[in-house]
Amino acid sequence: MKRHILKGNICTSGDTNEIKIYKNSFLVCIDGICRGIFEKVPSEYCGIEITDYGDMIIIPGMSDLHVHASQYAYRGTGMDMELLDWLEINAFPEEGRFSDMEYAACAYDIFADDLLKTPTTRLCAFATVHKDATLYLMEALEKRGFHGYAGKVNMDRNCPDYLREKDVSCTEEWIKECSTVNIRPAVTPRFIPSCTDSMMEELGRLCEKYNLPVQSHISENKSEIELVHSLCDVEFYAQGYDRYGLLNDRTVMAHCIYSSDEELALMKERGVFIAHCPESNMNIASGIAPVRKYIDSGQKVGLASDVAGGSDLSLFGAMTHALRCSGMYWRLVDESSRPLTFEEVFYMATKGGGSFFGKTGSFEAGYDFDAVVLDDSNMCHPRQLSVRQRLEKIIYLSDSRNIHAKYICGNRVL
Amino acid sequence: MKRHILKGNICTSGDTNEIKIYKNSFLVCIDGICRGIFEKVPSEYCGIEITDYGDMIIIPGMSDLHVHASQYAYRGTGMDMELLDWLEINAFPEEGRFSDMEYAACAYDIFADDLLKTPTTRLCAFATVHKDATLYLMEALEKRGFHGYAGKVNMDRNCPDYLREKDVSCTEEWIKECSTVNIRPAVTPRFIPSCTDSMMEELGRLCEKYNLPVQSHISENKSEIELVHSLCDVEFYAQGYDRYGLLNDRTVMAHCIYSSDEELALMKERGVFIAHCPESNMNIASGIAPVRKYIDSGQKVGLASDVAGGSDLSLFGAMTHALRCSGMYWRLVDESSRPLTFEEVFYMATKGGGSFFGKTGSFEAGYDFDAVVLDDSNMCHPRQLSVRQRLEKIIYLSDSRNIHAKYICGNRVL
Repeated sequence: MKRHILKGNICTSGDTNEIKIYKNSFLVCIDGICRGIFEKVPSEYCGIEITDYGDMIIIPGMSDLHVHASQYAYRGTGMDMELLDWLEINAFPEEGRFSDMEYAACAYDIFADDLLKTPTTRLCAFATVHKDATLYLMEALEKRGFHGYAGKVNMDRNCPDYLREKDVSCTEEWIKECSTVNIRPAVTPRFIPSCTDSMMEELGRLCEKYNLPVQSHISENKSEIELVHSLCDVEFYAQGYDRYGLLNDRTVMAHCIYSSDEELALMKERGVFIAHCPESNMNIASGIAPVRKYIDSGQKVGLASDVAGGSDLSLFGAMTHALRCSGMYWRLVDESSRPLTFEEVFYMATKGGGSFFGKTGSFEAGYDFDAVVLDDSNMCHPRQLSVRQRLEKIIYLSDSRNIHAKYICGNRVL
Repeated sequence: MKRHILKGNICTSGDTNEIKIYKNSFLVCIDGICRGIFEKVPSEYCGIEITDYGDMIIIPGMSDLHVHASQYAYRGTGMDMELLDWLEINAFPEEGRFSDMEYAACAYDIFADDLLKTPTTRLCAFATVHKDATLYLMEALEKRGFHGYAGKVNMDRNCPDYLREKDVSCTEEWIKECSTVNIRPAVTPRFIPSCTDSMMEELGRLCEKYNLPVQSHISENKSEIELVHSLCDVEFYAQGYDRYGLLNDRTVMAHCIYSSDEELALMKERGVFIAHCPESNMNIASGIAPVRKYIDSGQKVGLASDVAGGSDLSLFGAMTHALRCSGMYWRLVDESSRPLTFEEVFYMATKGGGSFFGKTGSFEAGYDFDAVVLDDSNMCHPRQLSVRQRLEKIIYLSDSRNIHAKYICGNRVL
């Protein structure tokens, strides 16, 4: 049995409205599972080695519900256009490079190395249409200790020839060849504009046959939605996925900025997770998702970097952008929509999004032991701050230097 | 005569729509003044020592047109309220601490040290109502090589007793005692809600008597504007400053989110600079300033961190937030308002805002030699990027590690 105990200032979400703070407390991990937070080490755990992080802050690992690993190389460039042009000009040419395994290996190693230095422990990653490169990504992530899903992208229309597939045969090969244990395959239609009905039908079949989760995009951009309606006979966007069995409680859909009430009702009924991508939504001027409405109506919602629509690979950035976005939504769109709170975005980044992966994102007993140790000793202050203030400051102001250690399922990965 | 030459990849704004890029070129500085950018060192400058920054990128120093030095300690906390509550709950209690010189010295040293690690070379800083602490801030900034203005804040209403002044006598003492050469005093009424007409009148008199610039806030928040109208008999906010001679071409006003056409026309006529504070405007949900309109109508406009409404002391953050804000303004408020471009926000952060301080923010011959050397060698890429792409990426993704060197008026300060 692998057993260890961490000591520090422990912060974890109670419900969406509360961050519980335990100063100088002990976090017990047995075989990768959290046994809870204790003021003193209970007698049954005496003798287990304690790693004392002193005055540092320990938070649950964070879940990035939507990130394009294959776009990492051009993050922070070319933000001066909207989605459809942005795909054409930035995304597709870059993704085309992943037919070259040497390039893919280099790019994915950089992505996975940089991801280690963020608070992310779990992720849903998009690769490209290329099977071998996607397998490489999965191994690169697994080797570094990450858990989650990665997807070989599917496209058979509205994309350059060098990315267009005939059918899902290569995808099925990819599913069969996946040998990683902690990074598992997710069925990944890019979005309806780039997948014909027949491809969607085949993907639904694979999903059922291999019992796989699904990740895709929905209702991100107004022109995209018009395009969907010109391509499909649907009342609303989500129907284009649902009719092929692609919406269920193991589906995560990015964006939902312009989802109608009918679309939201269907997604809630199916148990679909929403990946809120605030930085991306601002960068490529898609709009602002009404997250307050999603939370209040009981939709499952987590946060996402959406690199490279988002530039920041850290979920801390997604948290502060989500706060700003919700403030702007309240101010400019709907004054009845109360802005999100810090507690709520912390919940979304940890326990909220984490529940897509099972019992992760919390330090309650029985949860997977994913933890991030934050060292803010390089942030000088003229006076003493509370742990809550320090946590907020770290979320707003930290960089990779402040990520002192990271554990995934009890294994120290950084 | 102090002479030196820097070599590297040099980027500087042409006009608002262009960033000129000179690969592997030479930047000549004689006595703190830039003599221009050269492909080869001209014969007249032969023999001057060359500092070779290799493949690094050299940009002009940036100007932060509005920053509350006294609020730096609580940046990145307490963002869950609007302006007037935020002042009451966060700003005033913190500013009250600056009556204690020991606290003030510690806080201002941290601020000035951290500012060194940003691209800022010039600034307009708010202190507090305290004379001695303000003098300390000015010395702390000057000692580290900065140029610009700092202001002892004035308040005689709508503030706690511990910050309320009777008159401007202490401010006049402060002006007389200022001995710093490169950090000069600016008359600093907090804003109309906290300054009576009689105080404004006195400040106008000081401004004229000592030939001083002015910095303040205007049209930031809807409740603030209502308060102004309940306190003053004005048609629009700016009149409350203008009637006391406080609006001229040495005035910088932060925000202008809700400025009417009449207000903008008056500010343009007077030559007032607008400090656009996008992160702050989002954080405390003030709204989004229509910066496209300001640029197109020829208003003078620069960027500002507005710490602690803004959390990020770096103008790089202000640049990317300005881009996001303008995209959201276009998307949510006015579809005829084209989003800002990267070129435009680079201009605003350098030459645009820099012109408040004279000939600064450009590498044209005759400009003050303020330069920032950027080292992006820790950002791994799977392929070669252009200098323009690297610059954009640094602006989006860098932190203090990437600020390799900084020069102000020819002096290396970092």
